Amino acid sequence: MKTNLTMLTDLYQLTMMNGYFKKGIHEDIAVFDVFFRKNVCEGGYTIVCGMEEVVHYVQNLAFNDHDIEYLKGLGLFDDEFLEFLRKFKFTGDIYAVEDGTVMYPGEPILIVKAPLYQAQLVETAILSIVNFMTLIATKASRVCYAANGDPVLEFGLRRAQGPEAGLYGAKAAIIGGCVGTSNVLTGKMFNVPISGTHAHSWVQKFDTELDAFRAYADTYPETCLLLIDTYNVLDSGIKNAITVFKELREKGYEPLGVRLDSGDLTYLSKEVRKRLDEAGFPDAKITASNDLDEYTITSLKQEGAVIDSWGVGTKLITSYDYPSLGGVYKLCATTNKEGILEPKIKISENPEKINNPGFKKVVRIYNSFGKSEADLIMLSDEEIDTSKPLEIFDPIYTWKTKTYENYKVKEMLSPLFLKGICVREKKTVEEVKDHTRNELACIWNQYKRIKNPHIYKVDLSQKLWDLKQNMIAQKKKF
Amino acid sequence: MKTNLTMLTDLYQLTMMNGYFKKGIHEDIAVFDVFFRKNVCEGGYTIVCGMEEVVHYVQNLAFNDHDIEYLKGLGLFDDEFLEFLRKFKFTGDIYAVEDGTVMYPGEPILIVKAPLYQAQLVETAILSIVNFMTLIATKASRVCYAANGDPVLEFGLRRAQGPEAGLYGAKAAIIGGCVGTSNVLTGKMFNVPISGTHAHSWVQKFDTELDAFRAYADTYPETCLLLIDTYNVLDSGIKNAITVFKELREKGYEPLGVRLDSGDLTYLSKEVRKRLDEAGFPDAKITASNDLDEYTITSLKQEGAVIDSWGVGTKLITSYDYPSLGGVYKLCATTNKEGILEPKIKISENPEKINNPGFKKVVRIYNSFGKSEADLIMLSDEEIDTSKPLEIFDPIYTWKTKTYENYKVKEMLSPLFLKGICVREKKTVEEVKDHTRNELACIWNQYKRIKNPHIYKVDLSQKLWDLKQNMIAQKKKF
Repeated sequence: MKTNLTMLTDLYQLTMMNGYFKKGIHEDIAVFDVFFRKNVCEGGYTIVCGMEEVVHYVQNLAFNDHDIEYLKGLGLFDDEFLEFLRKFKFTGDIYAVEDGTVMYPGEPILIVKAPLYQAQLVETAILSIVNFMTLIATKASRVCYAANGDPVLEFGLRRAQGPEAGLYGAKAAIIGGCVGTSNVLTGKMFNVPISGTHAHSWVQKFDTELDAFRAYADTYPETCLLLIDTYNVLDSGIKNAITVFKELREKGYEPLGVRLDSGDLTYLSKEVRKRLDEAGFPDAKITASNDLDEYTITSLKQEGAVIDSWGVGTKLITSYDYPSLGGVYKLCATTNKEGILEPKIKISENPEKINNPGFKKVVRIYNSFGKSEADLIMLSDEEIDTSKPLEIFDPIYTWKTKTYENYKVKEMLSPLFLKGICVREKKTVEEVKDHTRNELACIWNQYKRIKNPHIYKVDLSQKLWDLKQNMIAQKKKF
Repeated sequence: MKTNLTMLTDLYQLTMMNGYFKKGIHEDIAVFDVFFRKNVCEGGYTIVCGMEEVVHYVQNLAFNDHDIEYLKGLGLFDDEFLEFLRKFKFTGDIYAVEDGTVMYPGEPILIVKAPLYQAQLVETAILSIVNFMTLIATKASRVCYAANGDPVLEFGLRRAQGPEAGLYGAKAAIIGGCVGTSNVLTGKMFNVPISGTHAHSWVQKFDTELDAFRAYADTYPETCLLLIDTYNVLDSGIKNAITVFKELREKGYEPLGVRLDSGDLTYLSKEVRKRLDEAGFPDAKITASNDLDEYTITSLKQEGAVIDSWGVGTKLITSYDYPSLGGVYKLCATTNKEGILEPKIKISENPEKINNPGFKKVVRIYNSFGKSEADLIMLSDEEIDTSKPLEIFDPIYTWKTKTYENYKVKEMLSPLFLKGICVREKKTVEEVKDHTRNELACIWNQYKRIKNPHIYKVDLSQKLWDLKQNMIAQKKKF
């Protein structure tokens, strides 16, 4: 994402911009919501990520001469519009949640309020960034939840959907809970812990496995972790590892442990643990990798696998069983000829695809213990009087109501850009990760359950609900 | 991929490089094969892609001062090694298939033969590039096969695994058979066709759908294609479209057609076709999109959907049902103390995971009609005398043999780098796409079948088979 991504957009954004320009309505203000319709992996929550990358993208928007030349060659655009593009600069507002925030389906996680032509241009790249980073941060959080406090390491670069997906995916994985990554560039760019020891090729390169282990221990006596499955874990790998660990100890060093990368990890880890303990290395750790994800880790733990830390690759970095978040960008309001912001709606045969109209906000309701109880999507000018009880209702089964007393509320979105200027302070990955940890501490475990989680309440304020129903009724009259 | 990706590697590559350096064996020559174990989507073939990006990556390898500084700070590396890295340059050979080549599981698609420390560094990025580009090129080819000659457009940027995956994924999709992409930057960078008209937001922006369609037709009278499902396809969208198409015709223009993006595409396309024909627009085309892939397109065609072209997004750009190729990079040979190249093997409990040892080549056998019949993996110094019949045998069920007479052979890999210099001419995307088309024309349809394809024969030469069996037997003695 270091290159200029101004042209990284769908052609229809530019053809629409040209059309709005011709009609003289390009400067009308538009409000677009970014939201998703399902949690990652159909889980109980989603951790939003990518806002820092959105800032970088928006700040660097500019068409250069080559871009204009190329667009001219397409024969689709008026010269006047192309000249106008040369001066393109984002001057609008963006409201967004903090990276690492827990959010739910249907809630705006980012809102662009900007001149129509600007808001249109940025749709595609914003979605591409936020969809992916959010996907991986959430997937990582699920894997870490399954690991139940054991360290999880991100190892997926070689299987990522290209180098950049590996680079930024590793960052998102750490925000989601991983303790480190194998990815050196991610480590350097984002100042996050990296780890790695040796591959099977190291063992193959030497005449024997024992030679290879000795050479490794000799190079890294203080951080000796050996991969023991190149030939056979129990007949060869663990035996040679213990030989080398004993030699290390004679030289005054303690080994870190061993890594398993194939086979029946439950059986092998139990056997390896026994052998290490018997040989006098109860502190040597067992790391496992090999196509792991939250489902396999859960099963391995259930079977009593004795694994201390987990290396997770392909299935984390691609969110293998759910490889796209599906976030959308929908027009919710636009100014009319009088300059008044009017709500907008898109009707669909599929009721879930009807958007919530208007310029909105999301409010989270916390109980007195600090646990979040429900979210409320409201129009931006609504306020909650927390001195009074708050009744909310399900937007579909409206007879399902719930009343809160002794509660606190928090607005989930805050300004990211105002009049084109970024107004949010940059945080370190460690700070964002802390935020994620705090966010997850505020939700009950039933929402974190890997399969069939409980569904968190996301309701609409009465005013927003009424507006939406009225607009649907009106459009039906067409 | 425009940034310097030298540090985009797994940490263990660098720790191993440091270890080899310390042991003085870093300049030993190593041969690594890149191969995959299953075809994309468990189909019958895979289209290899990403070699052009590998060239760019390898040509730009260099550690800068910041990189060295960062590595020094990790406290893992000797100063002498870090100084050595400052002069890092790839000086080895790389053999690879052409982009767009059809290949099969177990075959080397790229071979690195280089000093050990260099070959180790490049593993991760090469896999990341080739795994992803190959995945998407093959997925696109499958979608196009299902579309059976209808144009397929790539629309997935917003759902890609980040901006770069969208950018290069779109290129791979075109190589795999798509006629164009919505992605403007891909269009500009790779000189490929782009397309796009308007979104739902365009329709929402205007007071009525009819106003929106008129405004669009007014802006693009020559290329008018209208999205007709913002409110209701049959009650509103197609009616308004026909009104505007008639107005266009009065002005001397013919409309391109309409796009459907939701609902029952079979029913809606049949109804819309009827209405367009009845209104005198038999040449107006129907484009469809909405979570399409090769499986849904096959079903829609089976049901008689009247769709002329297909916009495919999420499920193509992420290869949704199979989001990672799983290509690996295995040490197959390395020089010994005498400088002689010796084959290497990795044993595994899982027989499929045992690599083919030695420096090898892949030969494709064609019949007299130019159809490919089988592939043979051989040691690099073996030759086939095509004046004699050729008997090949299944590497597992060795009693299954087949003899070819009147056949031709072709070596599938050719030099990409020799002594660090790229020796392959750059091709345009159009040329690569032509190569893909020719490749696919050479394979029988039973290998292109979307589900349960026939399995293409990939056998080992007698010499390679003997070598492998002997090495397995030797390692078993451990």
